[in-house]
Amino acid sequence: MRKLYVIGIGAGDPDQVTMQAIKAMRAADGFFVIGKGAEKQELVDVRTAILTEHVPGPHRLIELTDPPRDRTPSDYTETVRDWHARRAELLESAFADLDGVGAILVWGDPALYDSTLRMVENVLARGNIDFEYEVIPGVTSVSSLAAQHRMVLHRIGEPVHVTTGRNLRESGLGPGSTVVMLDGECSFTQLTDPDVWIWWGAYLGMPDEVLISGPLREVEAEIVARRARLRAAKGWIMDVYCLRAGLD
Amino acid sequence: MRKLYVIGIGAGDPDQVTMQAIKAMRAADGFFVIGKGAEKQELVDVRTAILTEHVPGPHRLIELTDPPRDRTPSDYTETVRDWHARRAELLESAFADLDGVGAILVWGDPALYDSTLRMVENVLARGNIDFEYEVIPGVTSVSSLAAQHRMVLHRIGEPVHVTTGRNLRESGLGPGSTVVMLDGECSFTQLTDPDVWIWWGAYLGMPDEVLISGPLREVEAEIVARRARLRAAKGWIMDVYCLRAGLD
Ligand SMILES: C[S@@+](CC[C@H](N)C(=O)[O-])C[C@H]1O[C@@H](n2cnc3c(N)ncnc32)[C@H](O)[C@@H]1O
Ligand SMILES: C[S@@+](CC[C@H](N)C(=O)[O-])C[C@H]1O[C@@H](n2cnc3c(N)ncnc32)[C@H](O)[C@@H]1O
Repeated sequence: MRKLYVIGIGAGDPDQVTMQAIKAMRAADGFFVIGKGAEKQELVDVRTAILTEHVPGPHRLIELTDPPRDRTPSDYTETVRDWHARRAELLESAFADLDGVGAILVWGDPALYDSTLRMVENVLARGNIDFEYEVIPGVTSVSSLAAQHRMVLHRIGEPVHVTTGRNLRESGLGPGSTVVMLDGECSFTQLTDPDVWIWWGAYLGMPDEVLISGPLREVEAEIVARRARLRAAKGWIMDVYCLRAGLD
Repeated sequence: MRKLYVIGIGAGDPDQVTMQAIKAMRAADGFFVIGKGAEKQELVDVRTAILTEHVPGPHRLIELTDPPRDRTPSDYTETVRDWHARRAELLESAFADLDGVGAILVWGDPALYDSTLRMVENVLARGNIDFEYEVIPGVTSVSSLAAQHRMVLHRIGEPVHVTTGRNLRESGLGPGSTVVMLDGECSFTQLTDPDVWIWWGAYLGMPDEVLISGPLREVEAEIVARRARLRAAKGWIMDVYCLRAGLD
């Protein structure tokens, strides 16, 4: 039977790859690469660096060109579901062509705001090809953010709420700490809570990493300006941050 | 100047260690090992396996015997703070004796329900010894749980709430998915929500790993019974679970 590994590779630093991930990569005959467009070449480079360093070549890379996606849809969930279905077709036909063990290298951890597992489940549900699959967990950008700031995510005994920029704008801070991913709009500027601390990080684990932290009201303008400059200079940005009410 | 590495090693499987962690371990002259009592020898064994496989010996292991701790205190936060202060003294004197680079291997990721970083900050705050320190992120038991169940932690666009058994009993489910750690009391049995799904895992990544998932009301008795049996047989248990309202 065909086998597929869905492998978390960490969130930026190629050395964040685990031994478990390296072993799975070494067992793979082909690597499905889901293209995100040229601007994120650096994200592709992290994968290439990992393969070059840890997996004897040649590497059979099978590119799947990501279908276009409406980024400002009226029905968010439906649009994302439809996009997943189109990606499933791509993977299905590529996997049908590969005679052996496939692998997909996933940024960070496959369980956190990543659609690869849904795509794989979609392929299985279509019923045209059958395969076993295994998931290798990875270091998340959340852990990476905390490590670079040398912080514990929560106060003693408190919860950590991991959410998106969209949810932060709609629902505000959760109880305890709130970690925000997928935020293209600096949604922290819309909070009205008085005493909030922020720990912000962009391009974590990569050569251009930037860290800023402090009382939100004191540092938010700096983050907004810095983020805009970085994004303009590089053409893209990835950032994540942790917010916590109270100034301790 | 002295240097300390606080290194996440993953949550059970020795192969969950990252290359970054291995490199930091290789740079260390001594390893501070915080003893948790004989019953958790297996957790010590994971660390030993990692060192033996990846770090040329001999390894200088410096044991710090964890001070006793009241597990059912009246003032939870105060009691934990006091316990941290006593641990800080231990680390301070051990580090003063080590002439070189120290390392502490932390279960999972140092940012999630782990007190090592607070201990390190306490040592620095005491001002008796000075050192640089660096944190290496690790794979969390949350990512490990999701990987073993081959699940994404949240529905599309929804948040993930990571919390403790105590908080679950007091505050119930968060919005989106709720991941519960540090729960000695099967707190999921106290939920009154009708349609909840649970993904449960014990001893993740270890030889005795057990996974159970399904509608909470259908599988909770099995989890409670299984957990009690496993705990009695081994003398200890570590388990974590994800809950989500709705049966899809
Ligand atoms: C599609 S999600 C994937 C998350 C990934 N699965 C993980 O475990 O971190 C992408 C979001 O993750 C965060 N992110 C991922 N890598 C990052 C990095 N190196 N630096 C900053 N943020 C990062 C950003 O919030 C970004 O919008
Ligand atoms: C003191 S916390 C440490 C968490 C750790 N820093 C992490 O990143 O996973 C210990 C709790 O983590 C969870 N845990 C850690 N390792 C686990 C494993 N291998 N299997 C199941 N649960 C685990 C359990 O909920 C346990 O009560």
